[in-house]
Parts: sequence; structure tokens; C-alpha cells
Amino acid sequence: METLSENRCFGGKQGVYRHASEACRCDMTFGLFLPEEAEDGPVPVLWYLSGLTCTHENAMVKAGAQQWAAEHGIALVFPDTSPRGADVADHEMYNLGQGAGFYVNATEAPWAANFRMWDYIAEELPRVLFNGFALDEERQAISGHSMGGHGALTIAMAYPGRFASVSAFAPITHPSQSDWARKPIHAYLGEGNVDWVRHDACLSLRENGFNGPMLIDQGTCDQFIDSLMPEALAAAITETRHPAIFRMQGGYDHSYFFVSTFMEDHVAFHAEALYR
Amino acid sequence: METLSENRCFGGKQGVYRHASEACRCDMTFGLFLPEEAEDGPVPVLWYLSGLTCTHENAMVKAGAQQWAAEHGIALVFPDTSPRGADVADHEMYNLGQGAGFYVNATEAPWAANFRMWDYIAEELPRVLFNGFALDEERQAISGHSMGGHGALTIAMAYPGRFASVSAFAPITHPSQSDWARKPIHAYLGEGNVDWVRHDACLSLRENGFNGPMLIDQGTCDQFIDSLMPEALAAAITETRHPAIFRMQGGYDHSYFFVSTFMEDHVAFHAEALYR
Repeated sequence: METLSENRCFGGKQGVYRHASEACRCDMTFGLFLPEEAEDGPVPVLWYLSGLTCTHENAMVKAGAQQWAAEHGIALVFPDTSPRGADVADHEMYNLGQGAGFYVNATEAPWAANFRMWDYIAEELPRVLFNGFALDEERQAISGHSMGGHGALTIAMAYPGRFASVSAFAPITHPSQSDWARKPIHAYLGEGNVDWVRHDACLSLRENGFNGPMLIDQGTCDQFIDSLMPEALAAAITETRHPAIFRMQGGYDHSYFFVSTFMEDHVAFHAEALYR
Repeated sequence: METLSENRCFGGKQGVYRHASEACRCDMTFGLFLPEEAEDGPVPVLWYLSGLTCTHENAMVKAGAQQWAAEHGIALVFPDTSPRGADVADHEMYNLGQGAGFYVNATEAPWAANFRMWDYIAEELPRVLFNGFALDEERQAISGHSMGGHGALTIAMAYPGRFASVSAFAPITHPSQSDWARKPIHAYLGEGNVDWVRHDACLSLRENGFNGPMLIDQGTCDQFIDSLMPEALAAAITETRHPAIFRMQGGYDHSYFFVSTFMEDHVAFHAEALYR
């Protein structure tokens, strides 16, 4: 593993690291914020999965999350959103290929060679992190934005007991019913082959539930709201009588100005679950 | 107006008053908490509408609201839920007649003589309050529980600009589609005569909206949840892209143990809108 940068940040350290990924068969880069408390021993960790077109860097520099993580003594992981490189397949659409991994393990050509973001996030990167840094594997929480909200929700529900809490900013909630996400997932997994319970937060919630606190924020003026389908997740939550906080935030759009506004709430929400 | 009791409470005063109601053609009793600040001039006021079987007293003694109202310098009004008395019509069902006014103006016999709770809450009691006490008519908010949540939501949406914010604990959300509330409302207004946009929070939200913050709490283990239909209100909020906070509170039932648990949040929520 190679250290690309390390900067003092809110009393702790914001690092960027690169490692050879077995899952993605290419080098992968991630950001990791460690609060000051990590100098004395393992700290809880909050995963943040990013959205379409993002790298490990967007949330790391624009979400304002480190100040709140430092306040609560929590580490933050900012993974990339896809495999990358000249040898990695890509597509002219921004919602397919590099920057658009959708947190699935591709089975279809040309994507199957590298696009295994589910395994990368759920299996490989945890080993890298818990072997390499002062992080407490027993205290994990997960969040994400847009495509990353989809990833956070689906992965949290697929691994019962791993994450103390889950949250999402403007998540893709119901990709089986939304072209924006269904088309790329069909490209990765093959139309007709998709295990939608695994890869659709609404279906997974109805089938598997989630045993922990859940917080969703959605801007009412989000330019992608019709594709995100907040109404589908609200229906899944309320019809199954599932505990959750669902907030429709008036006037906010899909940007990091929205994410950063409510980041304090999300980190405090996860801190409460992680320190219970 | 007759003073039935006044007690010092959290530095302010909890009073109970009786007056002759024109709307209900009987004596009506209400509770009013005035914070200490009311000694110096008009204070903002939060209406709390109660649920089936309640009088003015239930929330006043069980909701624990005064401590938070005192902290924020806000008055609390606790109206009764129906006309009462030996001369007032009643019914053996707990969801019709005395204690079950449903915040409508009855037009059908035998209810039309007294059951005009919409006019009482929206027109008559405000005049009594703003003429008789140090309350600021320009700073009002409204909340309620169950049938009172239905009342709070429907009245708030029918009087745009009057209430800075609205909240509800386990509200009846969609009475046009729920027997529990549809049957008594049919008895009061006549089947086929009901203006459901006026008396159904889901329909009113879709038709009229509400220009201010909205907070809904619903317990997942509420014994009446199927009749309350939280999923219908969540759908109305999210499908219309309306700003709101909707919380499904895990393990809570329909009781005042639920209401009192989240009362601090509701009072703080309204305080933020009232002091904006």
C-alpha cells in the first residue's frame, strides 16, 4: 500500500492511499480520515460511498465531514466509485463505466474483468483497512450519496450485524424501477440476471429489513428526484412499519451544498449508534 | 370565563378555564400553559389537539410538554375534543360522540346541535385566547395526537399563513380511506357530503400543501397503525416533493409514553419556526 498524501486535519489526519486491488484487478485509491483518538487505539469507522462521477476525493474535500467526525472521534472512509485506468473498460455515458460502478459485481463483458465494486467495498477494502489502521471492526456504520446511498443501503442490509446504523443523502432507492440505474445495472449483470433484492434498497428493506437506525435526507428541489424515487423508499419504510427517519428537505438540490448542510446530523446520528 | 384552577408550573402557570361556547352551544373547558415570559408581554403559542376519548386534561398532565415550552418561552393550549354535557348527544362507540369530535362541523342529526369542533378550534377559541391572555396571534404553531394529529394537519393546511409549523404524533392521516375515522365523519357530515380535501390530511396536502416545516412521528408498534395509515401520508409527502420530517419510531406504541418521549423534539421544532 502506497501513501499518496497525509494532512493534519481537525486534530487528526486525512490520508489518501493506493493499493493493488484483487477484486478490481487494478490499483484503487481511497481516502481515510483518522481522528486524534486513533493514536491511542482503534476508533469506530463511518463508511461514505460516493455517487456517480465521483472519485475518493469529492466527499473528502466538499462534504465537510471531518469536523464532525473529529468531534465524535470517528474515522471516515472515502472509497472510489469504480475501478479506473487505461486498461479498464469505460463508456461515454456518465452512468456506466469508470466513476459509475453501482456497487455490484459485474458478470457481463466488457465489465466483468474489473467492475467488482460490491466485493471491493464489502470484502477487500475492509481487510485492507482493519489490517492497516487503528479501526474498530466491531463498530462500523455506513452512509452514502446518490449512487453511494444505494450502495450504503443495499450493502448494509446484505450484511446483518456489520453496520450499527445506515444513512443516505438523496439515495437511488429503487433501481429496478428507474431507468437511470436499471440500464447500467443491466449492462453490468445482464438483463434478467439481476438479483434485485440484493441491489434494490426498497426490495431489500421489504425482504431483509435492517436491524438498526436509518436516516434518509432528500432535497425537494433535487434535479434527479424522479429517478431517485424517494416515494418508493418512504413506502417501503412505512408499509413495513420499519424504524427510520425520512426527511424531505425543502429547497435543497442534489449537490454537495445539500450533503454538507446535513452532514453534521448524519455523523451525530451514526455516533449515537456507534457509541451505544 | 371561569378559572377552574391555576398552578405554578416550570416558572410559569398552568391554568384550566371554562367558557360558554357559541360554536358548541355548551360550556367548554381548556388548559393553557403560560411561560414566565407571558408576564412581560405576548408569547408565541403552540396548539395541542388531543385524540379520541381525551379531554383537555390528558396531554396537560401526561405529555410532559410544559418543561420544554417553558424552556422556549412558548404557551401551550390544550382544548377539549368535543362538546360535553348531559344535553349533548353521545354514542356507545368510543369513536363517535363525546370525546370524539373529529374536528369537523357536524351537519347531521343528532350531532349538528353541538358538534362544531372545527369552528370551535379554528374560530371561537382563538378569539377567547387572544382577547383574554398574553398570547401573540402572529406566532402560532399546531400539533396533535391521533385524531388530534388529523385535526392539527387539516386545520393547519386550511388556514395558510396562520401556523408557522405543524407536527403530529401518530396522526390519523387518511380518514377517507380508513373505517376507523370514515364512519364517524360520515355520521357527522353525512355520507356523500364530506369535503374530504378539507378533512383528510393526505388529500389536503396533495391539494393545498403547507407552507412551513412539518414533523410527523409514528411508532412502529402502534396498535392502531393500520387505521392511522402512515404510509399514505409518507406517500403524499414524498410524491408531492413536500418538505417534511417523517420518523418511524421503532418499538413505540400509541400511548402518551410515546408522545412524551418525543415531545421535547416537537416543541423545539416549533420553537425554531416561531422564533425565526
